[in-house]
Amino acid sequence: MQFDKLYESYLSSFNEYLNKFCDNLNCRPKILKDSLVYSLQLGGKRVRPVLMTAVADITGVGAEKVKNFALALELIHTYSLIHDDLPDMDNDDFRRGKPSNHKVFGAGNAILAGDGLLNTAYSVLFDECFKGNEYVSAAKFICDCAGVNGMIAGQSADLLHEKDEGADEDILEFIYENKTGKLITAATVVPAILNGGRYYSELKTLGKKLGFLFQLTDDVLDVEGNFDKLGKTLGKDEQEGKLTGVRLYGLDNCKLRIDVLGDDCIKIIDGIEGDTSFLYGFVNFVKTRLG
Amino acid sequence: MQFDKLYESYLSSFNEYLNKFCDNLNCRPKILKDSLVYSLQLGGKRVRPVLMTAVADITGVGAEKVKNFALALELIHTYSLIHDDLPDMDNDDFRRGKPSNHKVFGAGNAILAGDGLLNTAYSVLFDECFKGNEYVSAAKFICDCAGVNGMIAGQSADLLHEKDEGADEDILEFIYENKTGKLITAATVVPAILNGGRYYSELKTLGKKLGFLFQLTDDVLDVEGNFDKLGKTLGKDEQEGKLTGVRLYGLDNCKLRIDVLGDDCIKIIDGIEGDTSFLYGFVNFVKTRLG
Repeated sequence: MQFDKLYESYLSSFNEYLNKFCDNLNCRPKILKDSLVYSLQLGGKRVRPVLMTAVADITGVGAEKVKNFALALELIHTYSLIHDDLPDMDNDDFRRGKPSNHKVFGAGNAILAGDGLLNTAYSVLFDECFKGNEYVSAAKFICDCAGVNGMIAGQSADLLHEKDEGADEDILEFIYENKTGKLITAATVVPAILNGGRYYSELKTLGKKLGFLFQLTDDVLDVEGNFDKLGKTLGKDEQEGKLTGVRLYGLDNCKLRIDVLGDDCIKIIDGIEGDTSFLYGFVNFVKTRLG
Repeated sequence: MQFDKLYESYLSSFNEYLNKFCDNLNCRPKILKDSLVYSLQLGGKRVRPVLMTAVADITGVGAEKVKNFALALELIHTYSLIHDDLPDMDNDDFRRGKPSNHKVFGAGNAILAGDGLLNTAYSVLFDECFKGNEYVSAAKFICDCAGVNGMIAGQSADLLHEKDEGADEDILEFIYENKTGKLITAATVVPAILNGGRYYSELKTLGKKLGFLFQLTDDVLDVEGNFDKLGKTLGKDEQEGKLTGVRLYGLDNCKLRIDVLGDDCIKIIDGIEGDTSFLYGFVNFVKTRLG
C-alpha cells in the first residue's frame, strides 16, 4: 500500500479507538472531562501512535498488542502540549488552529487537564501490566521516556535555556533528544520490548534520530511555514530569541543536518527485515513537511 | 509503644528512605532536581506513608512490602501540593512555613516539578509491578485514587465551586472525598490489596472517613489555627469566600461532625483484629490538631 494510504488507515483506526476511549471516559465535574476530551480531539497527525502501530506490524508484534500503549503515549503527548502551552511555559494561544486548552478552560483547569491525562495514561498502562512482565517493561519504558530523565528533563532544559545566548549544540541536543526524541523513541521501542528485544537497539537509535529530525523540521517550519497549514503561531522562536536549530546552525546548515539525519534513518531501516516501506515513507513524510 | 513515639519512629524511617531516594535521584538540569527535592524535603507529618506503613504492620503485611507504595504516594501528594499552590490554582505563597515551589523556582518550573513528581511516582510503581499481579492491583489502585475519578476530580470540583454560593453538602462531600479522601484511602487500602483483600472494605471506609475528618479539621484550623504552628497562610478560606465545612455547616456544627466522624472511625477500627492501638491514636491525632 502507498505510504499516504497506509498512514491514513493507521490514523483512522487510532482515532476511532481514541474516540471510543473518550466516549467511555467517565469523570466529574463535566468541565474536567470536557477539557481532557477537547485537547485529545483537536486532531493532529497522531505521529507517535501511528509510528508505534506501524513498527508493531512490521516486526510481527501486531497492532492489537500495542494499541493501549499507543493510546497512553498519545495521552502523555497531549498532556505535555497542554502544559507547554500555558502562559507560565511557552505561552501559546493556539494549538492545531484552535484555541489552546487554557484559552478555553482557563489556566487552572488546563493544569488539571494535563495532570488528568498523564494520570489516565498510567491507569491504561497499569491495566496492561497484568498481562506479564514484558508488558510491565514496556509500560516502564514509556514512563521513563516521559519523565525526569526524558521529556520533562527536555522541557526543563528548554525553559532554562530559551533565552540563553551562550547555549551550545550540547544543550540543544539534550533538549531535542529529551523533549521530542524520547516519546518518539517510546513509539519505536515498545514493539521491540514486546517482541523479546528484537531490533531493540536499532529501533531505539531510529527513534532518537527521528525525534531530532522532527524537531529540526519544526524549527525550519517556524521560519518558513504558514499558520493555515500548521495551526499554530509561527515566527515566535525568532521573535523571542528562542534557542533553536535555526538560530544555532543557521537556516541552510539546519536543512543540511535534516538531510544527513534522514540518511542516517534510512541506513538503520535498511538493517531491519520485513516490509519496511512504511518506515522509509515516514522519514520522507517528516522531511517533506518542509516542501 | 505510645502513639507519639510510634508515629515518630514511622516518620523517621520514612524520611530516611525518602532522603536516600532524593540523594539517588539523578536528573538534569540541576534546577529540575532541586525543585523536586525542595518540595519533597519541606517536611510535614508524612501522614499518608506513615498511615500506610502502620496499617501494613497491623495487618501482618509488613512495612518492607509497602515501602515503595508509601514513597510513591508521598510523591503524588507532593506534586498535588505544588500544582495546588500555583497562582492559577489556590495561589498560596507558603507551604509548611517556607515559600511555595513556584515562589522559589517560578511557576513554569513548578509545573514541571509537579509533572516530574507524578511521573516519578509511577516509575517507582512500575518497578513494583514486576513482583506479581497483587502489586499491579495495588499500583493501579493508587493511580485511580490520584486520577480523574479521584484526587484530580476533587481538585477540579474545588476550582469550579470555590466561590459558588449555591454549593451544597453533596458538592462539598464530593470534593472532600476525592481531593483529600482518595489518597488517604490509598494509604489504608494498599496493605489490604497486598494481603489478599483482608479487611478491604473496612479499610476503604476507614480511609474515606479519615479523609473527611482531616479536611474538616483543616477547615476549622483555617479559622482557629496559627501560622507558626501550621506554616501556611490562614484565614484565606473565609477571606475568599471559599466553600468549606465551616462555611456550609457553621463552626460549631462542623466540630460536631468531626466528633461523629471520629466515632465512626473508632467503630471500624473496633472490627479489625491485631494491635490496632496506633489507629485509635491516629484518629485522636487528626482530631487533636484542633486542641
